[in-house]
Amino acid sequence: MRKNKYCVELDVVDGSFPDRYMGCGYGREYTIPEMFERIASIDKITGVELVSNWQVTPENAPEIKKLCDDHNLEVVSILPDHFSQKKWGKGAFTSTDKNIRADAVQVTKTLMDLAAEMDCKKLTIWNGQDGYDYPFTANYMKELEWLQEGIRECAEYRKDIQLAIEYKVREPRLHCYLSNVYSTLMFLKEVNCDNVGITVDFGHCIIAHENPAEAIAACKLYGDKLFHVHVNDNFGVWDDDCITSTEHVIETMEFMYWLKKTNYDGWFSFDHYTPRLDGRDALIEGVNWMEDITALVDKIDDAKMEEMFKNVNAVEMSKMVRELLFH
Amino acid sequence: MRKNKYCVELDVVDGSFPDRYMGCGYGREYTIPEMFERIASIDKITGVELVSNWQVTPENAPEIKKLCDDHNLEVVSILPDHFSQKKWGKGAFTSTDKNIRADAVQVTKTLMDLAAEMDCKKLTIWNGQDGYDYPFTANYMKELEWLQEGIRECAEYRKDIQLAIEYKVREPRLHCYLSNVYSTLMFLKEVNCDNVGITVDFGHCIIAHENPAEAIAACKLYGDKLFHVHVNDNFGVWDDDCITSTEHVIETMEFMYWLKKTNYDGWFSFDHYTPRLDGRDALIEGVNWMEDITALVDKIDDAKMEEMFKNVNAVEMSKMVRELLFH
Amino acid sequence: MRKNKYCVELDVVDGSFPDRYMGCGYGREYTIPEMFERIASIDKITGVELVSNWQVTPENAPEIKKLCDDHNLEVVSILPDHFSQKKWGKGAFTSTDKNIRADAVQVTKTLMDLAAEMDCKKLTIWNGQDGYDYPFTANYMKELEWLQEGIRECAEYRKDIQLAIEYKVREPRLHCYLSNVYSTLMFLKEVNCDNVGITVDFGHCIIAHENPAEAIAACKLYGDKLFHVHVNDNFGVWDDDCITSTEHVIETMEFMYWLKKTNYDGWFSFDHYTPRLDGRDALIEGVNWMEDITALVDKIDDAKMEEMFKNVNAVEMSKMVRELLFH
Amino acid sequence: MRKNKYCVELDVVDGSFPDRYMGCGYGREYTIPEMFERIASIDKITGVELVSNWQVTPENAPEIKKLCDDHNLEVVSILPDHFSQKKWGKGAFTSTDKNIRADAVQVTKTLMDLAAEMDCKKLTIWNGQDGYDYPFTANYMKELEWLQEGIRECAEYRKDIQLAIEYKVREPRLHCYLSNVYSTLMFLKEVNCDNVGITVDFGHCIIAHENPAEAIAACKLYGDKLFHVHVNDNFGVWDDDCITSTEHVIETMEFMYWLKKTNYDGWFSFDHYTPRLDGRDALIEGVNWMEDITALVDKIDDAKMEEMFKNVNAVEMSKMVRELLFH
Repeated sequence: MRKNKYCVELDVVDGSFPDRYMGCGYGREYTIPEMFERIASIDKITGVELVSNWQVTPENAPEIKKLCDDHNLEVVSILPDHFSQKKWGKGAFTSTDKNIRADAVQVTKTLMDLAAEMDCKKLTIWNGQDGYDYPFTANYMKELEWLQEGIRECAEYRKDIQLAIEYKVREPRLHCYLSNVYSTLMFLKEVNCDNVGITVDFGHCIIAHENPAEAIAACKLYGDKLFHVHVNDNFGVWDDDCITSTEHVIETMEFMYWLKKTNYDGWFSFDHYTPRLDGRDALIEGVNWMEDITALVDKIDDAKMEEMFKNVNAVEMSKMVRELLFH
Repeated sequence: MRKNKYCVELDVVDGSFPDRYMGCGYGREYTIPEMFERIASIDKITGVELVSNWQVTPENAPEIKKLCDDHNLEVVSILPDHFSQKKWGKGAFTSTDKNIRADAVQVTKTLMDLAAEMDCKKLTIWNGQDGYDYPFTANYMKELEWLQEGIRECAEYRKDIQLAIEYKVREPRLHCYLSNVYSTLMFLKEVNCDNVGITVDFGHCIIAHENPAEAIAACKLYGDKLFHVHVNDNFGVWDDDCITSTEHVIETMEFMYWLKKTNYDGWFSFDHYTPRLDGRDALIEGVNWMEDITALVDKIDDAKMEEMFKNVNAVEMSKMVRELLFH
Repeated sequence: MRKNKYCVELDVVDGSFPDRYMGCGYGREYTIPEMFERIASIDKITGVELVSNWQVTPENAPEIKKLCDDHNLEVVSILPDHFSQKKWGKGAFTSTDKNIRADAVQVTKTLMDLAAEMDCKKLTIWNGQDGYDYPFTANYMKELEWLQEGIRECAEYRKDIQLAIEYKVREPRLHCYLSNVYSTLMFLKEVNCDNVGITVDFGHCIIAHENPAEAIAACKLYGDKLFHVHVNDNFGVWDDDCITSTEHVIETMEFMYWLKKTNYDGWFSFDHYTPRLDGRDALIEGVNWMEDITALVDKIDDAKMEEMFKNVNAVEMSKMVRELLFH
Repeated sequence: MRKNKYCVELDVVDGSFPDRYMGCGYGREYTIPEMFERIASIDKITGVELVSNWQVTPENAPEIKKLCDDHNLEVVSILPDHFSQKKWGKGAFTSTDKNIRADAVQVTKTLMDLAAEMDCKKLTIWNGQDGYDYPFTANYMKELEWLQEGIRECAEYRKDIQLAIEYKVREPRLHCYLSNVYSTLMFLKEVNCDNVGITVDFGHCIIAHENPAEAIAACKLYGDKLFHVHVNDNFGVWDDDCITSTEHVIETMEFMYWLKKTNYDGWFSFDHYTPRLDGRDALIEGVNWMEDITALVDKIDDAKMEEMFKNVNAVEMSKMVRELLFH
């Protein structure tokens, strides 16, 4: 069986995330050292993804790195905060204020340096505030160009750090620019830097009405651009970030199959949001779902699958999946 | 293990259904006797659901009944055609033309008599044309009252035949009146006839953004109104009528659990639409999915489930489902 | 022209609401007296809707009442907080913990008394935490019964205060029990208390895939149950709470037409969430949209409309709407 | 005021389209000469879009061309039939059968020649059957490559004819490859032929959860690829092809604004599907909506709009739109 590499964002095991109605968070708050302990207690998790400001800053980086080392956790990726401070509210790389745009670039460069210091090879770039809300409010062409320029400037700053762009169709903006796998691939073609690629988040595919396995295939076909993977699940409408695979069992199977078929050897990062659950317990479940599904998918005979692709008979596929699941 | 009773609409094994683009249908056409043979060749299917005009009319009823008898197939339900003739295009029970409304009632009564003659206890009533398309075009209150009156008149005509209303949120109208389980339950409260109840179609729940298991519970709670069940699946947006359970595995498990918990002892009717597949092969797959899921659900310990309901811990539920599926 | 009565939730003019990513809120925080001043500066707004805990408590009630009086603002409704404290995280009226259920009832009764003291005739009841997230985690029948019992107990406590239930299909729970107009009407039939009715929130209709005008008609038809109206708009997926009518112009027109046709004489409460805008400016726009649309709708000739309902010709309706808008 | 050029598919004024339930069509059938007469009776319509097989074949082309000439209607575009014959049921350019793929190419070339003969400069290519239904049934990479190769071969066959690809997220396949503006732009980048571009269909944007104005901007930004425009509207879920602008008034305004801003000087083709209406009456309404909206949009002061883009204040935008509509 394949051995997947699993990591997680620290706050996935915290309990104090706010939403619009529960400003105080649903559960209890954990300190950063506690979060590390909680994560490290799960054998199969061997890395962390860190959010800047929330968890890591230039100031506390040595301390955080030590916590990683003490717990044998690799720093897989750092996510620059382009979304949680008031200044980013109307856009970071696409702000109409050129100082804010410059700031978005500067923050990213600083974190690229910080990543290098922490033996981390990758930033996850999530442009959650780079979009628009109402019709007639955005100059799409201009703002998309600013986004290209900003990302390109960061990418060229140092080529030893990868920038893995995580697309999402909406939230917190009502419409985000990098909304699905194809808008992001097209964007990357224009940016044209080897060290810029994609983070595919399973749930973001679903809410973009995009089949996750097709997204993986598209990343391969259009430039081999898959740099990172987030896993979770939802009910098809909103980025619920449920426990991985608890909704889309068969799509997750196909997703894992295509990751194997396209030789993905990167990390699986759990991007859960489980405010009413113990985040650590939910995370263990996520790992178990991933392990169980991987074991199943590894049973698929590749030669037989290639034959099935030639026949395109959904009855055969149904039978294969059903027998894998139940027999 | 529970023994489910399965039936199917005849045309599910035909291949000649049109859509908007493929007027000729994707596959080959079968004669009615061929369709009976195809269905009868599947052991576990022991009943049929017949659509009037398409498959049964007062004229050919004896012949159809003989085909049923010859193949040991029970006539489980008849579906009056209130949707496939030009006169129904702008509504049947809710047409603004009182003659058409009267006709909708008369057609139903005739089929109730026909059902009785065929040893069938139930009509499935699907009000697909009873709705509206654009804003400002419908007098909702008036039309809902007409629908109540029409259904009530049919129900009172003979109480030995059940009318099982199949709700659906849209298609062919852009908005249908009986759109979800609750609009239908509310409607039934007003109609107030013991022999009028509900057909829950699994896929119609999904496209109404309604959890199918909750729909079953609601039918029980609000008058014990579940008369019939249709099974199939879809991708959350449209009534794709895919092979049962090929999308919503866990929701189907929960659906079957609640049907058991609420003591449903009626039929499961496959309402597939598989134009690019051999309908009979797809139907066999549907039966197999249902059997496999039923076997799994029967392993759930009811006492343990009741405990889980008290704790409301989604991690436990995830574990239970995952272990049922993979271990 | 009709004279609409407008009110607003205090926090609509605040700027400090958190979301999942911007914990600090997008704009500046206003004090409660500032919010009153901001609202009172808008002539057409003559009432407020207060959220308990956030804005009003038994302790500060006299002070809040004085602020209302000083600014000539009627207390139109109070919304009990059943959602923003950790104890409500897994349900208020439907919590599996009977003490929490009792607490939900007690909080409501206390606020009914408080309302009476503030010359307010109505509570808006929003059961945002009364629902479930994952399949298999909820005993739907039991929990719906608890919800009935709890609401009934409150309703019987004092009949001079109306309880206006605000339904919503999701958020913060992934599935809420009182999800659409029909589930709420059915629920009210069981609760069977004259002083319990419905708050229709325009945007909640849209995300439930429910035509707002039909919702108004249904409230009239099934017991004359419309007690209160919230206005706002969204993009069809999530409760964006955009400025009223900025998305669904024609549906808002039809909504206002049916409110007039069914003789609604209650309030219109702006339930905006405009984190990146000045809330007061956005509110003024909302009032202006409502006034402009009301003026348009008042031009519709009722007799002609009744004729159109008889003909059901969407071309005529399109022409009527288009000429109202453009000519 | 701008003078828009309007054309229409012939069948938009026919009445006999089937759907899954009404195989016979809702209205009456018109002959091709009748359809031409019906269209020609509308002054502002000066072109037609023809579907091969349904309306034009190599055999009847001279006769059809004569009908066009007699009625002063330009042949704006021809749409090759890659979707209505059984052979295309599982794909045309992406069929796993290489003979069918070759056939799809050949049909297209033949129609390019035919177009040239009819003084038509453009084919609309709609790959409705090029997609997949169930998970695990498609080799996405291989099939997308076949689609590229096929379209490229057609494009190179003769460069004087444009191929305007009309994307659509679903229907008749449950998932289509060219699903949104970005997947199509990315695809075009790989195809890399000057005479291949895009048909943006307003309604297809909406069901892809894509803001139509952003789609227009993206076509401009990523290669100036907008070749053709289809107009209609829907309720956000399915390709209802309602009368233009009867749902998304403000989005249509913004769409028209961006078409002007990006100097679109092509045709507007009405792609209505109005089975319960008189298609010609509905078409007249569509023209009137377009004219009224264009007149409104032409009132927008470009300099002021550019200022608004700098400020990004949705309140200003709301005010501008509202005053345009109501004052």
